[in-house]
Amino acid sequence: MNDTKHKIAIVGFGKIARDQHVPSIAGEPAFDFAAAVSRNATAEGVDNFDTLEALFANRPDIGCVALCTPPQVRFDMAAAAINAGKHVLLEKPPGSTLAEIDTLIALAEKKGVVLFATWHSRYAAAVEPAKAWLKDKTIEKVEIVWREDVRRWHPGQAWIWEPGGLGVFDPAINGLSILTAILPDPIHVTRANLEFPENCQTPIAAQVDFTDARGTPVKADFDWRQTGPQTWDIVVSTREGEIALSMGGSRMAIDGVEKIAEPDREYAGIYAHFAELLESGTSLVDASPLRHVADAMMLGRRTIVEAFYD
Amino acid sequence: MNDTKHKIAIVGFGKIARDQHVPSIAGEPAFDFAAAVSRNATAEGVDNFDTLEALFANRPDIGCVALCTPPQVRFDMAAAAINAGKHVLLEKPPGSTLAEIDTLIALAEKKGVVLFATWHSRYAAAVEPAKAWLKDKTIEKVEIVWREDVRRWHPGQAWIWEPGGLGVFDPAINGLSILTAILPDPIHVTRANLEFPENCQTPIAAQVDFTDARGTPVKADFDWRQTGPQTWDIVVSTREGEIALSMGGSRMAIDGVEKIAEPDREYAGIYAHFAELLESGTSLVDASPLRHVADAMMLGRRTIVEAFYD
Repeated sequence: MNDTKHKIAIVGFGKIARDQHVPSIAGEPAFDFAAAVSRNATAEGVDNFDTLEALFANRPDIGCVALCTPPQVRFDMAAAAINAGKHVLLEKPPGSTLAEIDTLIALAEKKGVVLFATWHSRYAAAVEPAKAWLKDKTIEKVEIVWREDVRRWHPGQAWIWEPGGLGVFDPAINGLSILTAILPDPIHVTRANLEFPENCQTPIAAQVDFTDARGTPVKADFDWRQTGPQTWDIVVSTREGEIALSMGGSRMAIDGVEKIAEPDREYAGIYAHFAELLESGTSLVDASPLRHVADAMMLGRRTIVEAFYD
Repeated sequence: MNDTKHKIAIVGFGKIARDQHVPSIAGEPAFDFAAAVSRNATAEGVDNFDTLEALFANRPDIGCVALCTPPQVRFDMAAAAINAGKHVLLEKPPGSTLAEIDTLIALAEKKGVVLFATWHSRYAAAVEPAKAWLKDKTIEKVEIVWREDVRRWHPGQAWIWEPGGLGVFDPAINGLSILTAILPDPIHVTRANLEFPENCQTPIAAQVDFTDARGTPVKADFDWRQTGPQTWDIVVSTREGEIALSMGGSRMAIDGVEKIAEPDREYAGIYAHFAELLESGTSLVDASPLRHVADAMMLGRRTIVEAFYD
């Protein structure tokens, strides 16, 4: 039975790898967690390597890699894995630039491997039902509020404040990945205010306005300074009623009546879908959430705010 | 004979409209300059309107519009023109966000009109010859230097320093539009330093590193503070020799031997190509130069430099 499983290596063995990828792979019959690549950390019960090259040289039987490194170093690793003929799963965001993602797509196609850019929030329980409900509605306005405590979720992760680290857009992109999945019409940024701590290269908060071709107002409030209860809410007001997603898309209410309240199964959903993509030999890469971030960073007004110390 | 010409209105009657669009339309037999839309300026010898709506209401015979307004207000006008069934020519950059460009493409397709996002520098004399020469070469490194005097080219244009105005990327995107046209492989930003004057929302200079899937080094030096002679150079070093484009792509030398030296015919080329697109009913929109700007703004390190006063 074990021989029919896809052997997979996790590259970048940090918090998200340990908290989410390892248990999700363990819970998915199609995969076998076979190795880890990390400069600092060690995974128990599997082969550990310092570099991708060592992995490829010593374990040619491993056909898949999950890249969980920070986005700034992801392209070179993804390109190396694709060139080595490996199927590649990319943690979000799929890269630090939009252009590199297209280069990877072309490379994966050329090499005949599967490239899967994951957006874990799209596997939250309410996302597909919300998309189906909104399909034939007339949308009047949209509000998205994503407010978290950066100290709780990213302790000591200095890369998020460095160029390419995205700052508050690192969590906000989860909300944007849901929003872009559920809305029937594409949106674009019209105005953004970006709050940069005076000692950081990425914003700690952002207020972003979007609209669509019909002029629908879409307001986003992203903040990484929220202590206490955390907020991951999307409310879409339509002529036919209001749909509210909360807890990052795991709960859904229509006109105040709860329809869905599920525990988190996002990363399990990612690996189940990766198995399907491998089965059909299909890549899946949607850069649109990151494109909205790039647009906001290009178009936004920069405001300097209080310094941030972890 | 006049009846077979495409009647065209220029929207946004500023410096670029007067200096380039009016004479280029006059020189292109396929077009008839029929009206201008501007809040401040007046074009001689044609109907003038304050708004697009007034143009559409009073001159339904005009089937094409050239949008020469600043990018921050271009989307609403482009969408209105497309919805009114007009063919649309967009000055560069085609928008202030990448997402809005895709929305316009979809809208134009739905309405059956031609959308043409122009990059005037791609019509410089050396661009197509350089592209053809580079096609089968092994590229070793690329250098692009785009250094101009902002006071000479954009006197009093405050919008370039406002969010969405792009700053030095407004001229640099001309160089990027050439670079993306002539290089055989796609590139992506790996590092950027963005110099923001302390009183401005957009950079006055930027040093940007790119690479491709082969790891080729591509170095860009963009600066808007150059007085005296202006520099618009691209040098591509290949295993088979060196090709140098200068004067914004109007001159080309191979291994130091001049091959092309032509006067500026860029905007004439735009209108000749627009006539072809209208003939075949084909849209042409390549967002890749703007995508590199968005990537640089998302990934770049921000450095604060001396205040700029026009």
